[in-house]
Amino acid sequence: MVLGHSTAQDSAIEEMVTEKQVEAVHRQDSVNLLIFIMLLTLTILTIWLFKHRRFRFLHETGLAMIYGLIVGVVLRYGIHAPSDINNSTLTCKLQTSPATLLVNVSGKTYEYTLKNEVGSEKQSNIQDNEMLRKVTFDTEVFFNMLLPPIIFYAGYSLKRRHFFRNLGSILAYAFLGTAISCLVIGSLVYGCVKLMEVTKTLKGPFYFTDCLFFGAIISATDPVTVLAIFHELHVDVELYALLFGESVLNDAVAIVLSSSIVAYQPAGDNSHKFDIAAMFKSIGMFLGIFSGSFAMGAATGVVTALVTKFTKLREFQLLETGLFFLMSWSTFFLAEACGYTGVVAVLFCGITQAHYTYNNLSTESQIRTKQLFELLNFLAENFIFSYMGLALFTFQNHEFNPMFIVGAFLAVFIGRAANIYPLSFLLNLGRRNKIRANFQHMMMFAGLRGAMAFALAIRDTATYARRMMFSTTLLIVFFTVWVFGGGTTAMLSCLNIRVGVDADADQMAVPENERRSTKTESAWLFRLWYNFDHNYLKPLLTHSGPPLTATLPSCCGPLARCLTSPQAYENQEQLKDDDSDLILNDGDISLTYGDSTVNTETIDNSSSRRFIGNSLEDAIDRELTCGDHELVLRGTRLVMEESEPVNLQASRKPIAM
Amino acid sequence: MVLGHSTAQDSAIEEMVTEKQVEAVHRQDSVNLLIFIMLLTLTILTIWLFKHRRFRFLHETGLAMIYGLIVGVVLRYGIHAPSDINNSTLTCKLQTSPATLLVNVSGKTYEYTLKNEVGSEKQSNIQDNEMLRKVTFDTEVFFNMLLPPIIFYAGYSLKRRHFFRNLGSILAYAFLGTAISCLVIGSLVYGCVKLMEVTKTLKGPFYFTDCLFFGAIISATDPVTVLAIFHELHVDVELYALLFGESVLNDAVAIVLSSSIVAYQPAGDNSHKFDIAAMFKSIGMFLGIFSGSFAMGAATGVVTALVTKFTKLREFQLLETGLFFLMSWSTFFLAEACGYTGVVAVLFCGITQAHYTYNNLSTESQIRTKQLFELLNFLAENFIFSYMGLALFTFQNHEFNPMFIVGAFLAVFIGRAANIYPLSFLLNLGRRNKIRANFQHMMMFAGLRGAMAFALAIRDTATYARRMMFSTTLLIVFFTVWVFGGGTTAMLSCLNIRVGVDADADQMAVPENERRSTKTESAWLFRLWYNFDHNYLKPLLTHSGPPLTATLPSCCGPLARCLTSPQAYENQEQLKDDDSDLILNDGDISLTYGDSTVNTETIDNSSSRRFIGNSLEDAIDRELTCGDHELVLRGTRLVMEESEPVNLQASRKPIAM
Repeated sequence: MVLGHSTAQDSAIEEMVTEKQVEAVHRQDSVNLLIFIMLLTLTILTIWLFKHRRFRFLHETGLAMIYGLIVGVVLRYGIHAPSDINNSTLTCKLQTSPATLLVNVSGKTYEYTLKNEVGSEKQSNIQDNEMLRKVTFDTEVFFNMLLPPIIFYAGYSLKRRHFFRNLGSILAYAFLGTAISCLVIGSLVYGCVKLMEVTKTLKGPFYFTDCLFFGAIISATDPVTVLAIFHELHVDVELYALLFGESVLNDAVAIVLSSSIVAYQPAGDNSHKFDIAAMFKSIGMFLGIFSGSFAMGAATGVVTALVTKFTKLREFQLLETGLFFLMSWSTFFLAEACGYTGVVAVLFCGITQAHYTYNNLSTESQIRTKQLFELLNFLAENFIFSYMGLALFTFQNHEFNPMFIVGAFLAVFIGRAANIYPLSFLLNLGRRNKIRANFQHMMMFAGLRGAMAFALAIRDTATYARRMMFSTTLLIVFFTVWVFGGGTTAMLSCLNIRVGVDADADQMAVPENERRSTKTESAWLFRLWYNFDHNYLKPLLTHSGPPLTATLPSCCGPLARCLTSPQAYENQEQLKDDDSDLILNDGDISLTYGDSTVNTETIDNSSSRRFIGNSLEDAIDRELTCGDHELVLRGTRLVMEESEPVNLQASRKPIAM
Repeated sequence: MVLGHSTAQDSAIEEMVTEKQVEAVHRQDSVNLLIFIMLLTLTILTIWLFKHRRFRFLHETGLAMIYGLIVGVVLRYGIHAPSDINNSTLTCKLQTSPATLLVNVSGKTYEYTLKNEVGSEKQSNIQDNEMLRKVTFDTEVFFNMLLPPIIFYAGYSLKRRHFFRNLGSILAYAFLGTAISCLVIGSLVYGCVKLMEVTKTLKGPFYFTDCLFFGAIISATDPVTVLAIFHELHVDVELYALLFGESVLNDAVAIVLSSSIVAYQPAGDNSHKFDIAAMFKSIGMFLGIFSGSFAMGAATGVVTALVTKFTKLREFQLLETGLFFLMSWSTFFLAEACGYTGVVAVLFCGITQAHYTYNNLSTESQIRTKQLFELLNFLAENFIFSYMGLALFTFQNHEFNPMFIVGAFLAVFIGRAANIYPLSFLLNLGRRNKIRANFQHMMMFAGLRGAMAFALAIRDTATYARRMMFSTTLLIVFFTVWVFGGGTTAMLSCLNIRVGVDADADQMAVPENERRSTKTESAWLFRLWYNFDHNYLKPLLTHSGPPLTATLPSCCGPLARCLTSPQAYENQEQLKDDDSDLILNDGDISLTYGDSTVNTETIDNSSSRRFIGNSLEDAIDRELTCGDHELVLRGTRLVMEESEPVNLQASRKPIAM
């Protein structure tokens, strides 16, 4: 305590100086945020111009990067801010670095919070370039504030019909594929690192775990640019579903994989040698974190669904939207507080919300929530990409090593190929609706890297190896977004991939034998889940589906009556079900399995009792179920042409159950 | 530098410890945010129940406070977290406390950022109660993150017709009234402080400027509870406009006033004596900051209006909404970066956006932006109020002084009375449509304090005086929100204030002589502004209004043609104008002034040339203008009953111009 030494006047002057300093920091922060807002505004205006002129070579994210680059160059070479001399360096012998530091400055106590570790060898450099350091955000911001809305929106806007139909393939690409890609890239890069060691261009330690970590973060694909063009040109929905589904899920895999690799700590020594126990611990961690995060996300979604089902919150749309937003957001903090990964939880929460809660919302809230998350996703995505452009010039500790960069680029392409082609070959053995060669090439081509790889790479740039990875990741993102993103339309025509396909009409246009096989793909997984979901989860969590009284065993009667919403009894209400896609789909599956010995009759019987009144349609449908496929399909097509999809659904309900 | 001393293994272990620590901080933050999200969710569910049962005694903000209080009690008395022993206190002799601190911990450099000053006398207390300190947010969060959406929404949702009609009175209440209130409260509290000095209950310095500061922050009224009930019960629009307008503007006045008072620094000594130069400097600062912030806000709004007018951004609603959101947000940072007050700028930006930009947006974006800001406002408001409840128990440095509290409560009521009654009396001298006694009583009663007072009070709790103010402000907010907010319905019936009034029907129901006088109130100010706005600003910034070619002198022809949007020439497009309120209003004014020698013929002539085709309506309208008032009003009423407001507007357009 130095309180006695200073007079009141001194302390008053010091207080003023401190206040001035806090104000200066605040003003600087405002300028920084203003720069980014201006960047985003500029991006919006330019992208409008591009869209207006149907110019598809540059997506908004690519444009945001270019603007970011320009501002980065200006900040780096244009503005020479004087170095902040007040930036004291304390050399104190503390045992550890505490999270909060209370510093006594001549009697006054100031609270300091730990921001991050600064590479010690780079210290002098940092103090030289105060201005650039100030425009640098806390790296955790990306992971904890900007990624969640992007990932949630991906889950919330998943096109479920095509996603679930290709679930098997998507899971294979996302889990197996990402693991393959991670291993291949890790090994290739490790070879490259060894080569660098020989040629003495390596300036610090670079272990195999570092290489695997790089493999994990760079395996997160983000084909937002490609998907935007697919959406605009109405490219084949099957391909869209495969790519989108893979990119959404492999983000989650990459996050958990990278954190499991970081957690790989061989016991006892610090030699980074292979240790079987540590490896199994890492694998266990992967499974634990992944399933835990999945459970958290699904649980929050289910709670939201139950709340929106059993209250009449839909009368007040503002409250409803507010609740939806808060519950979705809480998943993130819940998972983080429990030690799981918030971003992964948010993804599965988004999928659950879309699958269940969405059906319980009022129409206005459905639109509101979609639009809200669409906007948040748009802003967050463009912010990250413009920050990437900026970071190329303003990040202080870049480590550009030409050999590593070339090696990484090669490894990334080889890794992507090792993911897509062998897996497609294996999947095609099981799929009757093969993933054709041009689709495989397109998937190979669409292996863009984006926000997720960047956010994972920037999280930790403390060591030499991590900094080199970060710089290289940045270059890979730039290259893939601009070159592959820009070349999408050219590639589509080059590969003869159909554009302008209407999702539903497409369904009809496929030849019968192919159509039949589409249904069987991944059906073993899908059907099990679907029956459970449709008969128990849907009726429990939403107003749609068959009443629980019909699907649950009779002993659960009172409980079932209590849990079933009155709307479920009304056939009318079924029409409102936004999941028509899946029910239609299910009808197809019943048909397909009608002659393949798989029997869903138990369900059919119990539910068809309810629909005894709809005798004519019932009879037709029964005939359809028992009849041969030729008839079935013609019948379906006929109904499709004559009436609206909604009516079709209503008339086919008895089979669907 | 202690790098040499530690082995590699030591540093690896230390690194792990630090990582653990950062993780623990992160997890704690997640738990804190989760608590608040859960609180808000609970508030939403309960308020739904209240709304569902039409229970009006407790508004959502009052409820949020109660839940906050409960959680605060639990945190304070229920959980005894062990104190964090790693929380080192460094006693270093630094000249000043820098914004960034680089701390060397055995070779590693950690970056610490200045969070805030901690009252030195309370240090020991703080370290005892780690848990409570952690649930405390950075005080600047309220001011820089939560207030802007609330204030923007207030500006954006201002009911402009009634606001502009009562502009004179609202400005008087907001500027003069707040100044009176500030002075009265400041003086009374100063008397109370002097009394405390005599009775030796004062434990620290408390200057007159502190009292004035208290007067300024507590003069910001926030009758959100009352207005919600007014809205629900359709209370007289005139009263609603007066109250809402006053509360919106006096927030801005209170912010700037309080910062001007803080800036009052008598030269040379530290005696806090009266200094005429310093006072004028403060007044100058008030005017400078206020007008600067106003200009910033209006400028951003105008730029947004121009951008949305001259691009076809409305084809892409997502881009349009994104741009609108970013531009509105940028106002805040722009003003802060220039040294003005962001919150005030945001308010005027909101008003400008509503007045001009809103008309240029596509219908979908109009809905989107309204809903987006409505949601942000709802969440931010309830968050602040629940934090208030929490702060009563978790804030560490409360200074509850019974005498000061009693004095402050009295001062607040006397200050409100000294604002409303004398000003209403003076205004009634000028107004022909008097502000009746029951309206005055209601305005007196609706002097609730809320988010703004809290945010201003919590910004700085470094000194004893400020802490006492903060604690007292908290109590005043609780009391006024619960007691006055809860008693609104009772008070309305007690004061015989009409409810269930339809805004437009009301217009017609007023007797003619009174109606006529309504128009003249504040017309001298309003008409000048309105003519300028309608003839020049509206056509320049939006697609509506008369074409500039008609209103500008002929020498500006080419420029006018260039700036006028094609839609302005089409009569049809006028119907889309969402400003029908004001145009109708203008028509009324023309009528009123038709026989009061005030001439608007120059405008009439130039614009009526364009409407020569609408001969019948034109003729009727002309007759209305020239005829006696009895006829005019009957005619108007007739049209109103026969046709939709839109048609009415179209047919009356020629006069309106």
